[in-house]
Amino acid sequence: MSNTKYFITGGAGFIGSNLVDRILSQGNDVIVYDNFSTGIPEYLDNAKKSSKFQLIKGDTLNKKSLTEAMIGCDFVFHLAANADVRFGTEHPSKDLEQNTIATFNVLEAMRENSIKNIAFSSTGSIYGESKVIPTPEDAPFPVQTSLYGASKLAGEGLIQAYAEGFGFQAWIFRFVSILGERYPHGHVFDFYKQLRKHPDYLDVLGDGHQKKSYLYVQDCIDAIFTAIEKSNDPVNIFNLGTDEYVEVNNSINWICSHLGLNPEIRYTGGERGWIGDNPFIFLDCKKICSLGWKPKNTIQEGIIKTLDFLKENPWVLERR
Amino acid sequence: MSNTKYFITGGAGFIGSNLVDRILSQGNDVIVYDNFSTGIPEYLDNAKKSSKFQLIKGDTLNKKSLTEAMIGCDFVFHLAANADVRFGTEHPSKDLEQNTIATFNVLEAMRENSIKNIAFSSTGSIYGESKVIPTPEDAPFPVQTSLYGASKLAGEGLIQAYAEGFGFQAWIFRFVSILGERYPHGHVFDFYKQLRKHPDYLDVLGDGHQKKSYLYVQDCIDAIFTAIEKSNDPVNIFNLGTDEYVEVNNSINWICSHLGLNPEIRYTGGERGWIGDNPFIFLDCKKICSLGWKPKNTIQEGIIKTLDFLKENPWVLERR
Repeated sequence: MSNTKYFITGGAGFIGSNLVDRILSQGNDVIVYDNFSTGIPEYLDNAKKSSKFQLIKGDTLNKKSLTEAMIGCDFVFHLAANADVRFGTEHPSKDLEQNTIATFNVLEAMRENSIKNIAFSSTGSIYGESKVIPTPEDAPFPVQTSLYGASKLAGEGLIQAYAEGFGFQAWIFRFVSILGERYPHGHVFDFYKQLRKHPDYLDVLGDGHQKKSYLYVQDCIDAIFTAIEKSNDPVNIFNLGTDEYVEVNNSINWICSHLGLNPEIRYTGGERGWIGDNPFIFLDCKKICSLGWKPKNTIQEGIIKTLDFLKENPWVLERR
Repeated sequence: MSNTKYFITGGAGFIGSNLVDRILSQGNDVIVYDNFSTGIPEYLDNAKKSSKFQLIKGDTLNKKSLTEAMIGCDFVFHLAANADVRFGTEHPSKDLEQNTIATFNVLEAMRENSIKNIAFSSTGSIYGESKVIPTPEDAPFPVQTSLYGASKLAGEGLIQAYAEGFGFQAWIFRFVSILGERYPHGHVFDFYKQLRKHPDYLDVLGDGHQKKSYLYVQDCIDAIFTAIEKSNDPVNIFNLGTDEYVEVNNSINWICSHLGLNPEIRYTGGERGWIGDNPFIFLDCKKICSLGWKPKNTIQEGIIKTLDFLKENPWVLERR
């Protein structure tokens, strides 16, 4: 698509800001809508140099502000969300408000502005503890195991109902964990932060045998545009991941080797890190691959790129 | 369960009030919480004679009132809902508020009161347009086709997450259409109301070939208590329906024959009655049947009982 004006909620976040840079590099216009509760202003420094970029500070829970900000846009990427599954049971209303109700507001703002196209960042967490692994898009009807997963499921359902009832076209992406440049959370971030402080030991949540599937952020964005370009149903649902997975211990070895360190590894023990944490999300990605996409980076390469970004941008570690 | 104190949201409604009478007949206590937006006060006339019955007028969107009303209860039936799938696209916020957010409020009120047991009225609509018919509980991950279905899906997800995160135990029932005494909507109601007014003709939405699966309300309540008694997982999900279905035309014949009428049938045409209406919900009910339950009434018997109730209670037709 050329001459498209995109609207991105959560555009100052990890995936959002990478998407902004990609859209601008394609010569298209983009409005970022972000409340900076977790978004990082510096991630938009590059984008701000472009005349095709506009930043609007606002909250997805403010329907009026959201509706006005969206005027004149053609396509909405709804990425803003509470993505912290760990704190789900401490603040149960957070996922409901920031994920479910916010998604409703985005859909209503679109309807008000006669915008019909939406891409949505969902999650592999909505498969709960799937009995089918790798898990395909049409896996057996899942049971939710986290408030985060439940809120994303609710968001998907709303979008699907708007597609049926109001003629919207939707692309829904169920992500594994995404990593790469600008990822300011997760195990690579935590481990590197620890090792900068104390290179001689590393505290690891769980037993290190947790299996994790990751996708590198630029591969993720390639997949998103492949799906939007080539899949044209009213509702298009895609798992996004890779056909490999790693154990946390693999990642520890790659990180330590890349840093030239040999720390003592101190495990907290147990299989799970926290309530609602899925021991293993591993998605069947045949559907997106059938459109000609495949990841250009292995999980190992993604982890090293994440690490290199953090080494080059220590300010990200020192925030707050 | 004996000496149980039940709390029923929507207890003045069709299914709710029948459930209230059943609970009282079992010798248990019950508090009905209803805002009477669609609940019918007269449906509780019998219950009001019991000292074990208490009525609290209140809204599920009022979390404070809900929380106070629930004090001292052991088990919550959450039946209150916006059940009118037809108007989903006219008032998109209605399903979000009255179904999704209301369910969240019920769960939070339970948590506040340390009540851990909940039964929830979900719907076969959450299977969308299932490719698997009859549709089992573990059908392929569905795509929503109505705001009503999406809001019930969101409610299910919240309840499941509370089971995982807060140790709740939940029974989730995905109903086909329920009919029987006190059903103040649906095709039997509409047809009988028309035929009282003009016995010589009957206007029928669609082409009359729509297939419909119905369950008689007393059989539905039997199934609910069977599941609660015999299924003891943290999350227990059951389809409730029968292994038969009828066409609207079958029903027309039974109704007209029972009334001794021979009206001209005037079809509006088309396969569907309205946007978001599923042409056919037919559930695989092997799971609930495996617990020893089976319906005691055929669909035809349920239709005739519904009709007889309306004949004996014409005030229900004349309300509003």
